[in-house]
Amino acid sequence: MTRLIVTFACLSCLVACAEPPAEAPYSASSPNLILIIGDGMDDHQITIARNYLVGNAGRLTLDDMPFRGMVQVQTVDDTNPAVPRYVGDSASGATAMATGQPTAEGRISTAAKTNEHLPTIMEMARAAGMRTGIVTTSRITDATPASFVAHMSNRYCEMPRGMVREDPIIPQDSTDCSAEFIANGGSGSIVEQIVNLDIDIYLGGGAGRFTDFIEGSDSITIRDAAVANSFRIIESGSELMGDLGQGKILGLFTDGHMPERMRGGVADFIERVNGVPQWPEAFGCEPNPAFGDTPSLAAMTRVALDRLDSHEGFLLVVESASIDKAMHYWRPCGHIGEMEQLDEAVEVSLDYAAVNRSTLVLVTADHGQTAQLLPHTSGLAPQHFAPTGRFARVRTPEDGIMGIGYASNDSPHWEDHTGVQVPLYAAGPRVDGLPHYLLQSDIFHIAATHLGLGDTWPAE
Amino acid sequence: MTRLIVTFACLSCLVACAEPPAEAPYSASSPNLILIIGDGMDDHQITIARNYLVGNAGRLTLDDMPFRGMVQVQTVDDTNPAVPRYVGDSASGATAMATGQPTAEGRISTAAKTNEHLPTIMEMARAAGMRTGIVTTSRITDATPASFVAHMSNRYCEMPRGMVREDPIIPQDSTDCSAEFIANGGSGSIVEQIVNLDIDIYLGGGAGRFTDFIEGSDSITIRDAAVANSFRIIESGSELMGDLGQGKILGLFTDGHMPERMRGGVADFIERVNGVPQWPEAFGCEPNPAFGDTPSLAAMTRVALDRLDSHEGFLLVVESASIDKAMHYWRPCGHIGEMEQLDEAVEVSLDYAAVNRSTLVLVTADHGQTAQLLPHTSGLAPQHFAPTGRFARVRTPEDGIMGIGYASNDSPHWEDHTGVQVPLYAAGPRVDGLPHYLLQSDIFHIAATHLGLGDTWPAE
Repeated sequence: MTRLIVTFACLSCLVACAEPPAEAPYSASSPNLILIIGDGMDDHQITIARNYLVGNAGRLTLDDMPFRGMVQVQTVDDTNPAVPRYVGDSASGATAMATGQPTAEGRISTAAKTNEHLPTIMEMARAAGMRTGIVTTSRITDATPASFVAHMSNRYCEMPRGMVREDPIIPQDSTDCSAEFIANGGSGSIVEQIVNLDIDIYLGGGAGRFTDFIEGSDSITIRDAAVANSFRIIESGSELMGDLGQGKILGLFTDGHMPERMRGGVADFIERVNGVPQWPEAFGCEPNPAFGDTPSLAAMTRVALDRLDSHEGFLLVVESASIDKAMHYWRPCGHIGEMEQLDEAVEVSLDYAAVNRSTLVLVTADHGQTAQLLPHTSGLAPQHFAPTGRFARVRTPEDGIMGIGYASNDSPHWEDHTGVQVPLYAAGPRVDGLPHYLLQSDIFHIAATHLGLGDTWPAE
Repeated sequence: MTRLIVTFACLSCLVACAEPPAEAPYSASSPNLILIIGDGMDDHQITIARNYLVGNAGRLTLDDMPFRGMVQVQTVDDTNPAVPRYVGDSASGATAMATGQPTAEGRISTAAKTNEHLPTIMEMARAAGMRTGIVTTSRITDATPASFVAHMSNRYCEMPRGMVREDPIIPQDSTDCSAEFIANGGSGSIVEQIVNLDIDIYLGGGAGRFTDFIEGSDSITIRDAAVANSFRIIESGSELMGDLGQGKILGLFTDGHMPERMRGGVADFIERVNGVPQWPEAFGCEPNPAFGDTPSLAAMTRVALDRLDSHEGFLLVVESASIDKAMHYWRPCGHIGEMEQLDEAVEVSLDYAAVNRSTLVLVTADHGQTAQLLPHTSGLAPQHFAPTGRFARVRTPEDGIMGIGYASNDSPHWEDHTGVQVPLYAAGPRVDGLPHYLLQSDIFHIAATHLGLGDTWPAE
């Protein structure tokens, strides 16, 4: 691949320029990778969060990482995989990163059209004797984390009971994965696959997905199966901070997705009175009381790093999931707060990497999201014209006002994704040699190359 | 500025790694800067253009430039400049880059609130004996190019007659710059300022702005004034390719903005029949017959580089203006074609820089733009829900379909800008030392430092 020769000839700069490590216990023997995914984290979401959290002239932790590039999201037509679809979801985005192979929307590390199971970077790391972990603010069965450890034709087949379901409004959310029942020779639901694995640590939400009975039983729950497979289940922040012993950990801190840290108003369509748009009042953000003492993404990341730190090396996937979810439901303070959670988890990871110098930290997104930073009043005549979609005004601590619009569809259900290229930030060995424009599947190859898993990237 | 120390310690990589020059005539004595501005060129526009022009897995010339970072757009409240406004326009964006000082929307290198004239990088380069040029596909009096050479409280004061005007629909487009008439001690209209300068080469559109009489005269046109100030006026592509002699050049190839290279359908609101959205047919793009034999941006850039190439060094500003303008008027093929023009001008510039090694090439945008790459059919139920704003479907040569939405307002006039951080690409001396996150005003400081104009960036 000729395109990479010039940039890849330059490998030494960052390491040579950074401070010497305070300690570097495993640097020669054990490559580590921390892959941090901001679900829906495109440049609008970063800009909106920066303006609110540190001001227009401020800097996020992300902004000071040594490398920044862009990643083309990849998704293909499920009936004709040669044709790109341009706008993907968490399943197709995470699958491209986890397996190096683009797939169709909704697929969890299975190939478009054929449903072939695609080997994931986490399975490869595990097979090579490395430690592995997943930290997320979503259900741990949700599409992004699931794509690293499970294989399923439809992301919604999280539980045995959910594998046959019809949605009257949104047919593509209807599911029939019955061919993938264990009884039919398949791997079973996503949650069953998760509890059957030897992942060292899972931390996130989704306890409600573990109360179902396992396929074919009317007495054994998924939780029972997890315990039988040597997982210790923890359910609170205080347990997380206590002595976790030596075995595998399954942290399930909330029934569904974990709560968003911040709350505020919700964007809505702008009403008109006598034809005049009624621009909404600006609001600020405040702590979300429902967040309570659920552990932060940074706290979970720190615990996971303590757990994974070893001579064998590790792969840790960290997801700030509700940047996306808050945007789907028009909650600007929600996505701002979850960007803050991501930025803190990045800081924890960079601190770890600063003393564990064989650690590569990658921060990227699975797909773009609709929320846009718009003028807070129309650039035209505000008494005549207004945004067509849902819209909110957020007052920043520096006393500016951001207009935030969501306009991908007019449904009361949720907002769509976009197909914009997404950011990649990196710190660690050889990141100054990364080309600044990549395909999403290149993330897999970079990861596999760094971890020494039989891949060589860039290809010759 | 501590934040820059690590990255700026690394200065040698790119130069050391690139191919040796075929010739490097002025590399020791004459720093050159080519600043290429994609008006409204944010990551959505780049992604949309890439998908169409080279395919989802293809690469633009931009994608292979050695450096990529992000730039925070800067714009402030005109009555209280301490408060950011977050969403700027071409005037505020270009002023921040041209002068290093953020200003309010609509201002041409004048300070918010005070109307103080802000010195521009092009004036500084000229004063230092360097050559200077502007190439654009807009009127050369339009906000982006004007901000490098003129000073005005309102971008719409392009001609003497335009300096007092009332717009019934869009009051902020109304103008009263009469205080800046020459008779009132001001600098006169933008076009008068332009023809009174010693810029070596202007190439673009806007001949219609030069037919007015100069202020206070009923017989001397702006064109007359340009000729009196030793400009040779050229008006066709064939003249541009001919012998241009030695004097100053004013190329005015069209009456208004130059035509867009490509055309196709126009996005519009999705109608409903019995409540069912009527999703529009997909269209492809085709050459715009109106483009005719007007010179391409690449051709103009090549001529300008020939003209400016010298022992003194130069500053050339190149703008692909109608990425923005096509988006304002919902023409996806228009903005795709103008992205192609930009990418070609980048190629011409990189070719020049490859043999003139003291040449820094910067490619950035003045602000983001509303057009988004959306699913071509709703991610929800397409028989129920559809995008709220104007929407088009573009069929790509690789047989995919892009949905492109515009939803910042519901007016028949135009689409707004956004406040997203915008790309910065760079090639040339020391670009591997650039931090990947910058403020828009940093572009000025990078330029002034490279050109040796008394600035030192980063500041200590």
